[in-house]
Amino acid sequence: MHHDFNPVHYHRTLGPHDPVLHIQPGDSIATTTVDARGFDMHREQITPRGNPQTGPFFVDGAEPGDMLVLQIDKVEPNRRYGFCGSAVAAHILEPDHVGERPEAPLAEWDVDVEQGTATLLGPASKLGNLTIPLSPMLGCFGVAARGGQAISTATSAEHGGNMDYRGFVAGTTVYFPVFEPGALFFLGDGHAAQGDGEIVGSGIEISMDVEFRLDLVKDKPIGWPRGENDEWIFTAGNARPLDQATQHATSEMIRWLEQDYGLDPLGAHLLMAQCVRYDLGNFFDPAYTMICKISKEVLSGISG
Amino acid sequence: MHHDFNPVHYHRTLGPHDPVLHIQPGDSIATTTVDARGFDMHREQITPRGNPQTGPFFVDGAEPGDMLVLQIDKVEPNRRYGFCGSAVAAHILEPDHVGERPEAPLAEWDVDVEQGTATLLGPASKLGNLTIPLSPMLGCFGVAARGGQAISTATSAEHGGNMDYRGFVAGTTVYFPVFEPGALFFLGDGHAAQGDGEIVGSGIEISMDVEFRLDLVKDKPIGWPRGENDEWIFTAGNARPLDQATQHATSEMIRWLEQDYGLDPLGAHLLMAQCVRYDLGNFFDPAYTMICKISKEVLSGISG
Amino acid sequence: MHHDFNPVHYHRTLGPHDPVLHIQPGDSIATTTVDARGFDMHREQITPRGNPQTGPFFVDGAEPGDMLVLQIDKVEPNRRYGFCGSAVAAHILEPDHVGERPEAPLAEWDVDVEQGTATLLGPASKLGNLTIPLSPMLGCFGVAARGGQAISTATSAEHGGNMDYRGFVAGTTVYFPVFEPGALFFLGDGHAAQGDGEIVGSGIEISMDVEFRLDLVKDKPIGWPRGENDEWIFTAGNARPLDQATQHATSEMIRWLEQDYGLDPLGAHLLMAQCVRYDLGNFFDPAYTMICKISKEVLSGISG
Amino acid sequence: MHHDFNPVHYHRTLGPHDPVLHIQPGDSIATTTVDARGFDMHREQITPRGNPQTGPFFVDGAEPGDMLVLQIDKVEPNRRYGFCGSAVAAHILEPDHVGERPEAPLAEWDVDVEQGTATLLGPASKLGNLTIPLSPMLGCFGVAARGGQAISTATSAEHGGNMDYRGFVAGTTVYFPVFEPGALFFLGDGHAAQGDGEIVGSGIEISMDVEFRLDLVKDKPIGWPRGENDEWIFTAGNARPLDQATQHATSEMIRWLEQDYGLDPLGAHLLMAQCVRYDLGNFFDPAYTMICKISKEVLSGISG
Repeated sequence: MHHDFNPVHYHRTLGPHDPVLHIQPGDSIATTTVDARGFDMHREQITPRGNPQTGPFFVDGAEPGDMLVLQIDKVEPNRRYGFCGSAVAAHILEPDHVGERPEAPLAEWDVDVEQGTATLLGPASKLGNLTIPLSPMLGCFGVAARGGQAISTATSAEHGGNMDYRGFVAGTTVYFPVFEPGALFFLGDGHAAQGDGEIVGSGIEISMDVEFRLDLVKDKPIGWPRGENDEWIFTAGNARPLDQATQHATSEMIRWLEQDYGLDPLGAHLLMAQCVRYDLGNFFDPAYTMICKISKEVLSGISG
Repeated sequence: MHHDFNPVHYHRTLGPHDPVLHIQPGDSIATTTVDARGFDMHREQITPRGNPQTGPFFVDGAEPGDMLVLQIDKVEPNRRYGFCGSAVAAHILEPDHVGERPEAPLAEWDVDVEQGTATLLGPASKLGNLTIPLSPMLGCFGVAARGGQAISTATSAEHGGNMDYRGFVAGTTVYFPVFEPGALFFLGDGHAAQGDGEIVGSGIEISMDVEFRLDLVKDKPIGWPRGENDEWIFTAGNARPLDQATQHATSEMIRWLEQDYGLDPLGAHLLMAQCVRYDLGNFFDPAYTMICKISKEVLSGISG
Repeated sequence: MHHDFNPVHYHRTLGPHDPVLHIQPGDSIATTTVDARGFDMHREQITPRGNPQTGPFFVDGAEPGDMLVLQIDKVEPNRRYGFCGSAVAAHILEPDHVGERPEAPLAEWDVDVEQGTATLLGPASKLGNLTIPLSPMLGCFGVAARGGQAISTATSAEHGGNMDYRGFVAGTTVYFPVFEPGALFFLGDGHAAQGDGEIVGSGIEISMDVEFRLDLVKDKPIGWPRGENDEWIFTAGNARPLDQATQHATSEMIRWLEQDYGLDPLGAHLLMAQCVRYDLGNFFDPAYTMICKISKEVLSGISG
Repeated sequence: MHHDFNPVHYHRTLGPHDPVLHIQPGDSIATTTVDARGFDMHREQITPRGNPQTGPFFVDGAEPGDMLVLQIDKVEPNRRYGFCGSAVAAHILEPDHVGERPEAPLAEWDVDVEQGTATLLGPASKLGNLTIPLSPMLGCFGVAARGGQAISTATSAEHGGNMDYRGFVAGTTVYFPVFEPGALFFLGDGHAAQGDGEIVGSGIEISMDVEFRLDLVKDKPIGWPRGENDEWIFTAGNARPLDQATQHATSEMIRWLEQDYGLDPLGAHLLMAQCVRYDLGNFFDPAYTMICKISKEVLSGISG
């Protein structure tokens, strides 16, 4: 079944909030998200800033211990105005380099969906009006947090949240552990494009039209968000520091290979040894996100 | 001028050792490297283990404050036998996952340069005889360390060393700060292939035939190794933890963009914001290596 | 005014929950806490495990931007049975040392308030029946978290929470930022004694009789919990990794010295330079706690 | 046998340098050290800056795998002029607090050995002329580094080096692993006093008169420096970040308790659980130093 959902209020924590819609596993939803500061497609602020989330959507039958399956079908900017931070965050620079950060207002971008480009409008710099390709993605989305918590949309953990990974584009499937009845799925914080690490604290922030499907795998506990696209399977570790985020992503990938790809521990470790890839999801938020990937081409070569 | 150099002894520290050859800036050298355990192309151990280095090569005219330019022209396995570790290192896993590491001997690979493949020979696992493409690279190379130190080939720092980044393949140019007269360039620790992070503590370790050129830029102090290939310019930050390695790589890239690409601080930060990419070089050695990249395509779009 | 409060339910998140009691600034409260697993003075489990909290107490007039003042007057075990973990946590050991952790059930202690001692009852080890002095403290206490969040009692942040610092004994004053109307103060997780770092994941866990007073300083925003006792003033930084926890504690102390002790930045930094002390609060929980201290004797010597 | 040794040159790396004196195990030595910048008791610069080291002293019979025993008998400033940094290092502050560091010249102190005090002379601040007690210590000392390396006196590792722990005062015994024949003991970088962490990058730097004895325990491999004084036994972990330094110190203490104090793993872990203490040695140098301590009073209560 398909649902067109028009949000009327938003959340800034991912927790056991009242659902806005009950759906069946397999249902699809078309909805919208406001930008990170609460501005909609008309550039009107309709809710306070801080990655306001559309949702939560209650998936009938979802129980703790299940796995929620999210198929992202469409993430498309629904206005032309985007903005981003102008300086790399202090904690991402050498401590003695912090004093040389530029002071500047937010940068503004013209986002042209038809051309598939974003063009820098200002502030004025030696960079001029740089034009880059669009790659629209969701920065913050996930399920209600573990243990009855309500966790800020500024950060992320096992339940997803503000992972700010540029790989969460249309065509991606994402898997989440379920901690609350109904899973309670939230989404928001769209970026028209984003570099690795979200090192200025934002992508090109913009409001979005989004379409997605939610499905369920019963009795399938997983530790951390997982995902896949045409080329890769991947896991997301969300923690500080990067070392720990990488530990979670790596261990979760090994568990996945052992559970679902027929590998023994030795086979899983040997496969990782020479074939693993990592992407730096975000290095800005309270929890960083490291992505651990194995290519489907490599997986197809497993003869065991 | 071209030199064919046949090494007769090796070093396990990068320091102010007696040079094996004096060359002029621009000269090319063809030589060989033994594998990480000191075995040569005949699988004979000719020197103790620990990333033994060929060199050092003294570049006439190189002085502290200059920049050494290394053009890697050829890195080619000169035997068929390669080996790698069998288990992801304990510190790369969640601490409570450490107990589930497999115990196994080194894995053995058949390296076929003509086919461009490496095939896993054992130990036996559910992975079977996985075949992967070759991508031969140098794991440990660089110049004599800062401040008169002699630094182990197990680790890396501003002078390069054991960076274990899979991007150091033929066709890559690498730039190093010079700390000692003559720069004193060393190389070794070839890998037939390697995953991101070198997470089992090794790539597919093998002896190599190597060809390279060394050149000099006078009075060009840089902070960390830099490099480029057809697609990317990149910097390498070598430190623990990953957070700090990433800080060094990021700050060095900003300095480079400001010094050599005509950008003001604001332009450099805005360019990084949406266009930066990171590769996880190594997450195993005493110093980790994080790579910060900007694509040449993006750089060509700078209108300032 | 004094209140005797008998809890009937408990919370495992610090968030905007319904208050159990409204009090005036300056009021005192006598109440009880269950142990970390929800067992009371009779060793009956009356609520699920996970540092269940007594409260929250609503302080009339408290508003975001105020500072809550907690005077801990009494923390006294109200039963003899205590328990603690038996093995240092995996992440606190060298990764290659993790495999040598002992496997053992919880350790049991006889807690004798009159004698002021705790005696190890088992499991049997070469340590025998070690007797150590009591030093009863609160492990987890604080106010409702920032931004409308409900944060697990497993962890800590600006609002306090599971800081597990052995210095939080009777006779200590603790200051918290206020994030919600009424501040909403919670407390629980008493330890009869605890080493630095809470490195086995617990102190000697026990139920407590507690007496405390709550007061208010209006319009006094602070960044992190602060405290004092007869000898020291101190700040608590709660974050991962230890480096970041130490940054927060250090910066908060500098701000305090500048705001309330008449020091300019140079004076504050010079004082810290040779006189600062740090205690490792906890190195176990999701957020670690580092304590930064300056002695009152040193402060009394400031002539400026 | 006793030796009076008058240094004529100094080293800025701890490595396999030519010994300045051969001694027998048990011999005592009286010598001097210059300050961190190479100035002697007459405030004349006699060697370049960077923690110049007196030594190395070759202990006859010392071989790799032995343990060197250092008894520090005297560390006494031999002039009145001391200096220290004026601002907490950038990496020790919250990244967004870095911009508020004071800019000031080195601070100057009058060091009065007879009174046992140091008095701040300037620069002028609201702190005035603070007077604090002396606690003279050695900042950088140790043996030739592992693996034939020559490691900068800026940093530390298994061999000791620039640990900058305020506990290294007269009356302390320190144990080092031996990596080179003769052990090759170096010392320097005296501080008249120092706060925890050496957070401005220096203690009160000064030249010293030093007396010490060196002894040997054959075939006693240890992992990290150990020490003891009247009250405590302690271990030093030297690494970045603090988490890793703490892991080394903790694991080394457990190994020590198991090897020399008759404890099984369970007993060692249980003892640590409620009795461990940590000191933050240095949080400034390239490798941080964390100290793990157990009190001799507690050790005397082991009944096993």
